Amino acid sequence: MKIQHLQGLISAPFTPFDSNGKLDVSLIPPYYAFLKRNGVTGAFINGSTGEGVSITLAEKKAVAQAWADCSNHDDDFKVMVFLGGTCLDDCIDLAKHAYEIGLYAVSLTGAFYFKPANVDVLAETCIKVGESVPNMPFYYYHIPVLSGVNVAMYDLVRALDGKLPNFAGVKYTHEDFMDFQSCMSYENGKFDMLWGRDENMLSALVLGAKGAVGSTFNYAAPLYYDLIDAFNANDLVKARELQQKSIDMIRFLGKYGGISVGKAYMKLVGHDLGGFRLPVKNMSAEQFELFKKDVAGLNFDAFKSK
Amino acid sequence: MKIQHLQGLISAPFTPFDSNGKLDVSLIPPYYAFLKRNGVTGAFINGSTGEGVSITLAEKKAVAQAWADCSNHDDDFKVMVFLGGTCLDDCIDLAKHAYEIGLYAVSLTGAFYFKPANVDVLAETCIKVGESVPNMPFYYYHIPVLSGVNVAMYDLVRALDGKLPNFAGVKYTHEDFMDFQSCMSYENGKFDMLWGRDENMLSALVLGAKGAVGSTFNYAAPLYYDLIDAFNANDLVKARELQQKSIDMIRFLGKYGGISVGKAYMKLVGHDLGGFRLPVKNMSAEQFELFKKDVAGLNFDAFKSK
Amino acid sequence: MKIQHLQGLISAPFTPFDSNGKLDVSLIPPYYAFLKRNGVTGAFINGSTGEGVSITLAEKKAVAQAWADCSNHDDDFKVMVFLGGTCLDDCIDLAKHAYEIGLYAVSLTGAFYFKPANVDVLAETCIKVGESVPNMPFYYYHIPVLSGVNVAMYDLVRALDGKLPNFAGVKYTHEDFMDFQSCMSYENGKFDMLWGRDENMLSALVLGAKGAVGSTFNYAAPLYYDLIDAFNANDLVKARELQQKSIDMIRFLGKYGGISVGKAYMKLVGHDLGGFRLPVKNMSAEQFELFKKDVAGLNFDAFKSK
Amino acid sequence: MKIQHLQGLISAPFTPFDSNGKLDVSLIPPYYAFLKRNGVTGAFINGSTGEGVSITLAEKKAVAQAWADCSNHDDDFKVMVFLGGTCLDDCIDLAKHAYEIGLYAVSLTGAFYFKPANVDVLAETCIKVGESVPNMPFYYYHIPVLSGVNVAMYDLVRALDGKLPNFAGVKYTHEDFMDFQSCMSYENGKFDMLWGRDENMLSALVLGAKGAVGSTFNYAAPLYYDLIDAFNANDLVKARELQQKSIDMIRFLGKYGGISVGKAYMKLVGHDLGGFRLPVKNMSAEQFELFKKDVAGLNFDAFKSK
Repeated sequence: MKIQHLQGLISAPFTPFDSNGKLDVSLIPPYYAFLKRNGVTGAFINGSTGEGVSITLAEKKAVAQAWADCSNHDDDFKVMVFLGGTCLDDCIDLAKHAYEIGLYAVSLTGAFYFKPANVDVLAETCIKVGESVPNMPFYYYHIPVLSGVNVAMYDLVRALDGKLPNFAGVKYTHEDFMDFQSCMSYENGKFDMLWGRDENMLSALVLGAKGAVGSTFNYAAPLYYDLIDAFNANDLVKARELQQKSIDMIRFLGKYGGISVGKAYMKLVGHDLGGFRLPVKNMSAEQFELFKKDVAGLNFDAFKSK
Repeated sequence: MKIQHLQGLISAPFTPFDSNGKLDVSLIPPYYAFLKRNGVTGAFINGSTGEGVSITLAEKKAVAQAWADCSNHDDDFKVMVFLGGTCLDDCIDLAKHAYEIGLYAVSLTGAFYFKPANVDVLAETCIKVGESVPNMPFYYYHIPVLSGVNVAMYDLVRALDGKLPNFAGVKYTHEDFMDFQSCMSYENGKFDMLWGRDENMLSALVLGAKGAVGSTFNYAAPLYYDLIDAFNANDLVKARELQQKSIDMIRFLGKYGGISVGKAYMKLVGHDLGGFRLPVKNMSAEQFELFKKDVAGLNFDAFKSK
Repeated sequence: MKIQHLQGLISAPFTPFDSNGKLDVSLIPPYYAFLKRNGVTGAFINGSTGEGVSITLAEKKAVAQAWADCSNHDDDFKVMVFLGGTCLDDCIDLAKHAYEIGLYAVSLTGAFYFKPANVDVLAETCIKVGESVPNMPFYYYHIPVLSGVNVAMYDLVRALDGKLPNFAGVKYTHEDFMDFQSCMSYENGKFDMLWGRDENMLSALVLGAKGAVGSTFNYAAPLYYDLIDAFNANDLVKARELQQKSIDMIRFLGKYGGISVGKAYMKLVGHDLGGFRLPVKNMSAEQFELFKKDVAGLNFDAFKSK
Repeated sequence: MKIQHLQGLISAPFTPFDSNGKLDVSLIPPYYAFLKRNGVTGAFINGSTGEGVSITLAEKKAVAQAWADCSNHDDDFKVMVFLGGTCLDDCIDLAKHAYEIGLYAVSLTGAFYFKPANVDVLAETCIKVGESVPNMPFYYYHIPVLSGVNVAMYDLVRALDGKLPNFAGVKYTHEDFMDFQSCMSYENGKFDMLWGRDENMLSALVLGAKGAVGSTFNYAAPLYYDLIDAFNANDLVKARELQQKSIDMIRFLGKYGGISVGKAYMKLVGHDLGGFRLPVKNMSAEQFELFKKDVAGLNFDAFKSK
C-alpha cells in the first residue's frame, strides 16, 4: 500500500448527544458542513475528544456511519476512526465495519488496562488488528498521558516497518519532539506523522509536520490555518502571536475542567452537541457564564469561522 | 440492604479459552468443582485475572451465565462480576444481566482512560451504575496499579455512605494499609472490605480482614487456608512461613512474565485453560519447562489441593 | 561484625531551631530525657524528620555531637545518623565523624538527584560509604517516596550480603510488605529490618518486626508501646484500636501541611523546637489553633507521656 | 536590575577529575579556551552536567574560582553557577561566594528531597536565596526529570515578577513548549528564557529562543551554530538535518549509560576530564571502543571544532 501523507487540519470531533445524553447523529451533517467551511480536511472520530471509550459499540458504529454518509463522496475529507485498544476483538469488529462503510483509515492505541510489556508486544497488537483490514491505512494513536503506554514511536515504527503493509503512520499526541523528529526522518519521511498537540503546533511545523489532528480545530481551525500561513511565509512574529492565542484558548480547558470545555467552545460557535458522559464532568451553568466572559477577553470571534 | 460480610477465599477465575483462543465455557464446571474442593467460597469473574477488559460483551455474558449455572443453587459460593469502568452504559448492561441470571454481586472500577477528576466524580459513576441494580450488593474494585485511579477508599466510602443503598464494600487491591484499616474501622466495620493482595494477606488478617479476593486462590487455596488457620491459632511463626511460601510462588509471576503465569500454575494443578489474549504475553514452551523446574523447588504439590 | 537486632521504638528526632531559625542544641538534652521517659530506645538523627537535607554539614555535626553527649554513656539508647546520599564524599566525612564521636550506626539513602541506574550501582554506593567506617553498623535507608529510588530491598540485601561486612540492615519506610517480609526471611532473619511506617506498624509486627524507626514516636511513644503490648498479648481488638488512633493522629499531618506538623505535636507535649526550614512550610498561628482543637478530639493527652 | 538576554550557546561544563577521581582545576583553562574557539558564549557550572550534587562545597568553590580566573576579563563569556536546591544556607553561601569572585549569575533549582508544596513555596525559596545576592542575575533552573519539582514556569514567573528584583529568567530543561512559550510571551519577553534541551533546539528557536544552555555544546557547539545559522537563513531542510544529527549523537547517551557518556565525547575532542562520580556509572574500556565505532558512523569529526 502506498502511504499517503495527509495535509492540513484534521479535527477530532465531539460525539453529539441530546439533552438526555442520548446519541444524536442528526447533528453530524451540519457539524461536517461547518468543518468544511473552515477548511478542515478530515475527521478522527470516536477518539478521546469523541469519547470513544465512553460509548457503546453500537453507538460507535452509528457515529461512523453518520460521518461516512457525509463524507463518502468527498475525496477532500478523510475520516479515520479510533478503534480503542483493550479488547482487540472489538477493535477488529470496528475496523471491519469501518472498511465496509467506506471510511478512510483506522487507528489503534496501546491497551490501557494491561499495558503491553514492551514495543514488540505493542507491535503484535497493531499487527493483529491492522491485518484485519489490509486495504486500509492503519495509524497508531500515541497518547501516553491517557493510555499510560509510553513506548518510543521511533521503536514502534521500526518494529512495524515491513511487518504490517498497511501501517501508515502515527497520530502523535505527546511532547517528545526528539522521538517525533526521529520518526519524521525515518527512511526519508516514509511514514505519515500527524501532530496531535495543538498548543505546540509551531514547534512541529518547523520539524516538517504537514498534517495535524486536534480537538481545537473543531472550533478554531481558521486560527491554525493563519498560523500555518504565517509560518510558511516565514513571518515568525505573527506565527508566535497566533500560537500564543491558541495557548490562551487552551488554558481555559484547564481552568474550566478539562476536555469537556471543548463542547462549551462549540456552543459559542453555534453547535450545541450536549455534554460529556461520566466520568468526565461538564461545567455548570454558572461556570459557563464565567467561561464566556473569559473567552470574550480572547477576542474569540475573530477566529471562529472564515 | 443489609450488608453481608463475606468470609474466606474468593478466587478471581481465569477465563478459559481453547487452543484457538476461543472462549470455552465447558471448562468452567470442572473449574468450579475444583475450587469447591479447595474450600473456595466464591468467584470474582471477568476481573483482571479473568481478562474482562480483553473479551467482548457477549463473551462476558457467556462467562457469567456459565458460572451462574454452576453456582446458582449453591448458597455457599458467591459469584461477583466485574463490570469494567470506562463505558458506563456497558457496565449497566452487564449489571442488569448479572441480576437477571442470579449472580450475587457486581463490581465497578474507576474509569481507566479518562480518570475521574476527584472522589466526588468517582462516587457519581458508582452511583449511576449501582442504582441500576438496587437489589444487588455493589463493590468498588480498587486497583490503582492497573486503573490509574488512586483515590483514598476512606474518602470514597464516606462519599457513598447514605447515597448508594446497595454499596457493600471494596475489593481492595492496593498496599495502603492506613487507608484499608480506616475503611475497616469506619462505622464499626459497616462495610465489607475484601483484601486483594495475596502476598500480603497476613498483614491484612491482623487488621481484621475476614474475606479476600485473589488470583492465587485459584490454584493454591489450601496454602492460604493453612495460613488463616495458623493466624487464628496465634501460631505466627507458621503463618509467616506460609506467607513466605505464597511470596515465593508469586515471585515467579514476575520472573515468567506477569499475570499470564497464573494459567501456567493452573496447568500444574490439572486445568488447562488456554493462554491469555493480547496484550498479555504467554510464556513459550521452553519457558514453561524452566518454570516447572522452578516450581518444583517450591514443593508446590504440598498445597495444590487437599 | 555480628549484627545486632534493635528492639523497640527508635525516634527520628526533629532538629531544634530557635525563633530565628538558628540551630539550638541546648534543646537536645531535655528532648533526650523526654524520649527516655517514654521508653524510646534510640534516635535516628539528621534524617527526614531531622531535616538532614536542609541543614549544613557543620550543623549536622553539631547535632550529632549533642546527641552523642547525651547518650554516649547510655547503652540502652542507640544513636544512628543519616548521612544523606547525593555527595558521597560528604557522606563519608559525616560517617567518620560519627565514628569518632562514638555514635552507634550510620545510614545512607539512594542518591536522590542522579538516581542509581540499578541495584548494583546502589550497592556500590553503599559499599563505598560503608567501608569508610568498617567497625560501625551500616543501615540502608529505604524511603522511595522522598528519594525517588525504588529498588527492591530484597535485591539490595542480596547484593550487599558478603560484600559489606558491616551492613546491618534496612530502615524500611515503604509499604511493600512482600519485599519487607522477603528481607525478614532472608537467611533466617540475618539482617536487622527496622520498620519505618508508624501508621502500619501492626501489619509489620505480625510479620515479626521487633524494631521501628519513626517520627511520631517523638511525641506518642506510649501509644505504640501499648500497641506492641496488646499485639504480644494477642489482644488484636485493642491493638487495632490503638493503630487506628495512630492513624487518626497521622491524618492531621496531611490536613495541616505535612512533615512540619510533627513540630506542632511536639509543642503540645512541651517541647518547642521551632519551625521547619524552607522548602517545608510551617502552619500559621491560626492554623495552630484549629489544629489544637482537632487534636483535642483525639484525646491526645492520654498517650503523650507515661 | 535591567534584565539582560543572553545570546548563543552556553555550555554546561563537566567537572574535571584526575585518574584518582580528585578535582583537577588545571584542566579548566584549556577547556575554556576550547569552548571559546567553538564560539561558546558562557558556562553554567556545577550543574547537572558538572555533578554539582556529587561534589563538596569546597570543590564547588574551587571550580567556580577556576572559571572566574579564566573568564573574569572576558565580557563575552558569562559564567553562571548552579547553587543546588535542598540546603538553602549552602545555596546562599555559594551565591555570595560567586558574587565575591565576580561570576555573572546564579541559579537555583527546586528542592529535590522535600519538594515545595506549591508555586508559592517555590517562589519563597527563590526569593530567600536570590535576595542574598541582590546585584546578580538570578535564574531558576527548571529540570523536573531530575528534581521532581514540576511547577509550571509560567506560574513561577508570575509569582516572582515584582517580588525578586534580580530574577532574570529560567534555564528551561523540559519539554513543555506551551509553558515555555507562555514565559517567552510574558510582558513582551521581559524575562530571559534559556533553552535547555539540545535535542529539541529547533522547536525552541521557532518560538523565539535566542540563548541555550546545554551539555552537548561542550563538544559539538559548531553543529548547533550551523543549525542556528540555517534556521536564521530559513533553510529548514538543512536545519532539520542538523537537528537530526544532534539527536543521533544524543541517542548514544542513552545507549552507553547516560550523562557520563558526555565525558567520553570530550575525550574524542581531546579533553580527558576523567570519569563521573557515583552514583553515575562510567562506561568500561570495552564499551568505549564500541562507542567510538558508533560515533565514527556519525561523521562526528565534521562538527567537533571549527
